Amino acid sequence: MQRYKLTIEYDGTAYCGFQKQSDIATKSIEEVLENAIFKMTQESVKIFASGRTDAGVHALGQVVHFDLQKLFEPYKIIDGLNHYLREENVAILKCEWVNQNFHARFDSKQRSYRYKIINRRTFLTIDKNHAWHVAQNLDLEAMKKAAEFLIGQHDFSSFRDAECQASSAIRTLDKITIKKINHEIQIEFFAKSFLHHMVRNIVGTLVFVGLGKFSITQVKEILEAKDRTKSGPNAPSCGLYFLGVEY
Amino acid sequence: MQRYKLTIEYDGTAYCGFQKQSDIATKSIEEVLENAIFKMTQESVKIFASGRTDAGVHALGQVVHFDLQKLFEPYKIIDGLNHYLREENVAILKCEWVNQNFHARFDSKQRSYRYKIINRRTFLTIDKNHAWHVAQNLDLEAMKKAAEFLIGQHDFSSFRDAECQASSAIRTLDKITIKKINHEIQIEFFAKSFLHHMVRNIVGTLVFVGLGKFSITQVKEILEAKDRTKSGPNAPSCGLYFLGVEY
Repeated sequence: MQRYKLTIEYDGTAYCGFQKQSDIATKSIEEVLENAIFKMTQESVKIFASGRTDAGVHALGQVVHFDLQKLFEPYKIIDGLNHYLREENVAILKCEWVNQNFHARFDSKQRSYRYKIINRRTFLTIDKNHAWHVAQNLDLEAMKKAAEFLIGQHDFSSFRDAECQASSAIRTLDKITIKKINHEIQIEFFAKSFLHHMVRNIVGTLVFVGLGKFSITQVKEILEAKDRTKSGPNAPSCGLYFLGVEY
Repeated sequence: MQRYKLTIEYDGTAYCGFQKQSDIATKSIEEVLENAIFKMTQESVKIFASGRTDAGVHALGQVVHFDLQKLFEPYKIIDGLNHYLREENVAILKCEWVNQNFHARFDSKQRSYRYKIINRRTFLTIDKNHAWHVAQNLDLEAMKKAAEFLIGQHDFSSFRDAECQASSAIRTLDKITIKKINHEIQIEFFAKSFLHHMVRNIVGTLVFVGLGKFSITQVKEILEAKDRTKSGPNAPSCGLYFLGVEY
């Protein structure tokens, strides 16, 4: 038995998310990967992801692990799986042998996400499905100041989806960076772990600050309220990219 | 009569190119724009582009002009046309009133193009249709050195498509910049004007240098040969972006 760690890229547009959903006709990333593994190895495996992503969310560095009875060189896994994935928008970037104790989810030391906004009047063409189009002008400095209230260890109940299954809402946000290149705003998040919809709820809230719908200090009050109804909208999934995981 | 200048963005993936092609079922950018102008103004116009782009080529700053009997404020043109373009991957970024002498094609002082290559083993997901995937490792320094031979005024017959209709193959290439960010290579070209397929033929040739199929100095010989059969392949259209025009 050998445990394999994969680093994966995908365009989430056409998928129902990472996880299989019995009630949804569109394919999941998990399913597509497990099928490719079966086609290559004739082994039925269960894969474990560092973090599940929702429908429409992309990944530049998702990490998963799984076990195979057979031993394959890592480069053979990459080439073999990519052969069966060619028609999909899911691709293997890297494969490593790891020991049997490694767990893609539980061993993560830091995860990172990028959220991409295009801030301009005109709707999107080239970036369609790959960024959130915000037509009104955003005050970036206000967003940066508001983001500072969220750094550190807090109860993030105000930014947590109702369906979140985590036992505690306490998380430690290590860093948020906000930068603008022409009309593109990139907000990056770094933490050991995140609650369900936490990044998108924070982005929606920061965008409300940028639009002047929330004041800068209101974000502190929203955080302290521990009440999801106080925060901004859940930003669209298409702007979110799972960047990577540190172990 | 008022002449209007538009700056346009488009994702060229689903179009047959800028120009109408009677034998091709897919729509052209020109057609989509002229239809939107008609829907908004009830006037049938002919639009003139700074430069035609082929099927699959994108634009971040294509410029066109056209005349209308009616006078509209520029912002009304933007909003009105974008309303009718919403279902398309063509969008108006900017509109200006220009005088009757202005010509989008003949008045261009400098045009710029970007060519995007993703240089990695794994096929593309998020960048599919938006970059050329080159799997073997490219020697960027060799490509930079080879590009220097092309700067300045030359007869570019070796990089000209057989169907090119220009009366002369002499062009002045002001600048080529080549930079790499992670796996992405961006090659930018600046010139008053270009021959048909000139950018893509140069990129194909530089990639052959990067792969070691051509030596650096061979590019000088190819240029001097004035023979299209000597140069590299025509790089795929999906990696090309018409950046903008100076007047």
